[in-house]
Amino acid sequence: MYKEMSFFVVGLVFILGSFGVAEVNASKVPGEKVEKADDSQQAENVIYMIPDGFSAAYATNYRLFKGEEAVWDEHLRGMYTTNSADSSITDSAAAGTAMATGEKTNNGMLGIDPEGNELTTILEVLQEEGKSSGLIATSTITHATPAAFASHVEDRSNESDIAKDLLNTEVDILLGGGKNNFLPESKGGNQEGEENLIAQAKEQHYDVVETRDQLLEVDLNVEEGEKLLGLFADEALPPEVHRNKEEDPSLAEMTEAALNILQDDEDGFFLMVEGSQIDWAGHDNDAGWAMTDVEAFEKAVHAAIEFAEEDGETMVVVASDHETGGMTVGANGSDSANPDMLKNVTATGENMAAKLNEDRSNIGEVVSQHTGITLNEEEIQTIEETEDVKAAINEVISERANIGWTSDNHTAVDVPVYAYGPGADKFTGFLDNTDLPKIIADVTDVGLKENHQQSKVHTVQPGETLFEIGRQNNYLWTTLQEINQLPNPHLIYPGEKVRFQ
Amino acid sequence: MYKEMSFFVVGLVFILGSFGVAEVNASKVPGEKVEKADDSQQAENVIYMIPDGFSAAYATNYRLFKGEEAVWDEHLRGMYTTNSADSSITDSAAAGTAMATGEKTNNGMLGIDPEGNELTTILEVLQEEGKSSGLIATSTITHATPAAFASHVEDRSNESDIAKDLLNTEVDILLGGGKNNFLPESKGGNQEGEENLIAQAKEQHYDVVETRDQLLEVDLNVEEGEKLLGLFADEALPPEVHRNKEEDPSLAEMTEAALNILQDDEDGFFLMVEGSQIDWAGHDNDAGWAMTDVEAFEKAVHAAIEFAEEDGETMVVVASDHETGGMTVGANGSDSANPDMLKNVTATGENMAAKLNEDRSNIGEVVSQHTGITLNEEEIQTIEETEDVKAAINEVISERANIGWTSDNHTAVDVPVYAYGPGADKFTGFLDNTDLPKIIADVTDVGLKENHQQSKVHTVQPGETLFEIGRQNNYLWTTLQEINQLPNPHLIYPGEKVRFQ
Repeated sequence: MYKEMSFFVVGLVFILGSFGVAEVNASKVPGEKVEKADDSQQAENVIYMIPDGFSAAYATNYRLFKGEEAVWDEHLRGMYTTNSADSSITDSAAAGTAMATGEKTNNGMLGIDPEGNELTTILEVLQEEGKSSGLIATSTITHATPAAFASHVEDRSNESDIAKDLLNTEVDILLGGGKNNFLPESKGGNQEGEENLIAQAKEQHYDVVETRDQLLEVDLNVEEGEKLLGLFADEALPPEVHRNKEEDPSLAEMTEAALNILQDDEDGFFLMVEGSQIDWAGHDNDAGWAMTDVEAFEKAVHAAIEFAEEDGETMVVVASDHETGGMTVGANGSDSANPDMLKNVTATGENMAAKLNEDRSNIGEVVSQHTGITLNEEEIQTIEETEDVKAAINEVISERANIGWTSDNHTAVDVPVYAYGPGADKFTGFLDNTDLPKIIADVTDVGLKENHQQSKVHTVQPGETLFEIGRQNNYLWTTLQEINQLPNPHLIYPGEKVRFQ
Repeated sequence: MYKEMSFFVVGLVFILGSFGVAEVNASKVPGEKVEKADDSQQAENVIYMIPDGFSAAYATNYRLFKGEEAVWDEHLRGMYTTNSADSSITDSAAAGTAMATGEKTNNGMLGIDPEGNELTTILEVLQEEGKSSGLIATSTITHATPAAFASHVEDRSNESDIAKDLLNTEVDILLGGGKNNFLPESKGGNQEGEENLIAQAKEQHYDVVETRDQLLEVDLNVEEGEKLLGLFADEALPPEVHRNKEEDPSLAEMTEAALNILQDDEDGFFLMVEGSQIDWAGHDNDAGWAMTDVEAFEKAVHAAIEFAEEDGETMVVVASDHETGGMTVGANGSDSANPDMLKNVTATGENMAAKLNEDRSNIGEVVSQHTGITLNEEEIQTIEETEDVKAAINEVISERANIGWTSDNHTAVDVPVYAYGPGADKFTGFLDNTDLPKIIADVTDVGLKENHQQSKVHTVQPGETLFEIGRQNNYLWTTLQEINQLPNPHLIYPGEKVRFQ
């Protein structure tokens, strides 16, 4: 275990070049925590929970919405940067790749580096160790975040190829939407030709289910090679507020069903659970949808932590891939935040917009029915005249809740990481998204070896800092922190060589 | 020391009422960190640094602006809530009071609880222990944040009374702006009648300085009761970009001068340093001002940590009072953040607005000169026609930098805490702003006793949760965390009594 740790924590070695001398004096700062490896820091199972688009602002608004601490609050450990290889603002594909492989890639790419080389994911590494695996999402199961753990494609939009990859990787449990990506065109699906991946899955010993009832009745044995493919919608699952509670499983129900199966693997398991639509709510600046889908995600986290409490060998990590929408807690000069009024919201803005009649004369009725808000005349007029009804409705709701938004895209703000169970402390402090799978690998006593085995040598260019060099080389933030504690953290000279192990 | 800790960490006791049974099973969660008290967790000196208005979004934008990690990044420990007693969005007076006394109060109030009772501040407690004290700000030194540590008034705007309090408390070092609040009306000041607090200060053995040169030449001995009052401007000091580097001391220079004096006290010291104008930049949505004043604050933090590194017995805490402006990292659908372009900004929006001629025809020239931005025709027309020139200029700059804003007021998002030195680990995880002075008291081995000595008993009302009760009673978040780890965290019943020690 120490060997693994040294691989991840200590690795930056100065080779003194012909120009400079880098003094290294790594004495420990007084009061700094010294991480010690011990048995309690080792986990058998990992539940990696990703609330897509979530940030500290979502966390604060959700706590006020709920009226008390969320299940994750007390498990806050640190925060991390989310930039991709080619932009300060990541997309979910590059973010998912970083969180799955420990390597930065370009926006849009999945499971490959910017040069197209295939990267090994933490799911694949743990599978090789004999653990079972699972991916759960409320989007299509072939969407960027789940795909990043078991697929390797240049373009995230190629969901029919991703579907093939998921089956080729033989992920033991796949639960979400996206049935169309597994079916041939002749059956209304997106697979070219007559390829029917659902039929293929059955040949691969997948039990295939399509309803909540079927999911709840599943009884299979992973130790005997039995697998589960649950595709509960042709495309994405409905937002939580529109979920048919009899027919569509909730994210918590999918999580519980998966844990119920995976816990039988004596070698342990890796399970990724995504709250996919928090991000979509952020893109729409739909505050009600955001809160209700965070709530659905929290129930899944609650189920995961409850399992981990009983099990004692399970690490639960809750970590967003990036923020979406530029959400704030308060807006427009407000002197209080008011997200609790969103408890009355029973539809997305998109759904309300679709319910309007041609002249939009029923706008007041529809909004009142689904939000409890009585629109004033100015708001009615604005919504009646706007080109984008959905956006106008969402704007009114956010104004009433004093929730601000600045974008319909992702933003680059650092996001929080929460962790529970063995090894949770290792997420403490300031991290990068690529650190997360490395810490998981450390705690499960494996290495993301194929991605990191080679030693890289970088020749310092004029004006470069250690920080920049580390970033360019996808080097560990923790190590740069160590280096920054040196008396002269940036004492490097042009021409000097820095080696990354 | 264990006694102190138990005071702060364990204190919520259930008295089983006539209705309910609360099962208490506080077994430790596997993998959770167990805090151990040891000598290295004790600090002799405290430097409490407050970047007013700062948040994770400011931290991320600033890192991108700087091009590398800020000095605080590697010292990230946790995040905390900032609500005041009467609102989810705090003002700086209530926030300063919480951060100085460990008690929530209403917005606008300083050093008193909502009922008007005087609260003891961490500065006052440490003074009683024989430590020297200091307050530094770039606002008036009588402004809400510094005032919260040594004044007790119902209305933060009463700065002439606050000036009296600062001298009555005999804070050893006071550095900032606000000379007018110490002078009588006859000398152009705000003190009613002929009261001249500068004359009074001299009688109290304060060395009074008014320029950078005078500050740098100060040579006094706190052990002999000599004190320092530095008032470098009639009102606030200028924003960093407009500071006259010959005449006005920087925040870092004031910090270094104070440390140079305070380090001679053998009993140690408490120093509060505020980067006051980050908040004002946030109110103005002035991205350039925000980044350059964060930069000035960072230099002060660098000086503080450098001192602490050499000293080995000094704890440095960097903690904002609240977020201002609803800042985001990216905006308007941007797919990258771009704050590094703000490096060219050499004036605040307010300053540029003041430089426009009557018909605003020189707008392009002024903005180009101070930002490097070439305005397009649409932007010129907008600024020429707007009612609020300053806001329009700031909006253009933020748009170019892809920085979003949603408010001209504070917001309620959780903010990060950074800490270095002995006891720094105690700030790890999810906290409330009232926890900060309690942790400082713990690490300096004193108690905020007068504020917390009484045991309160609360009778549970229908529908109440432990969380809400804890909040109403200003109870420690850390303890609620402990409670929330119980199997049934909310198993309380109406009529049951909850006692807070």
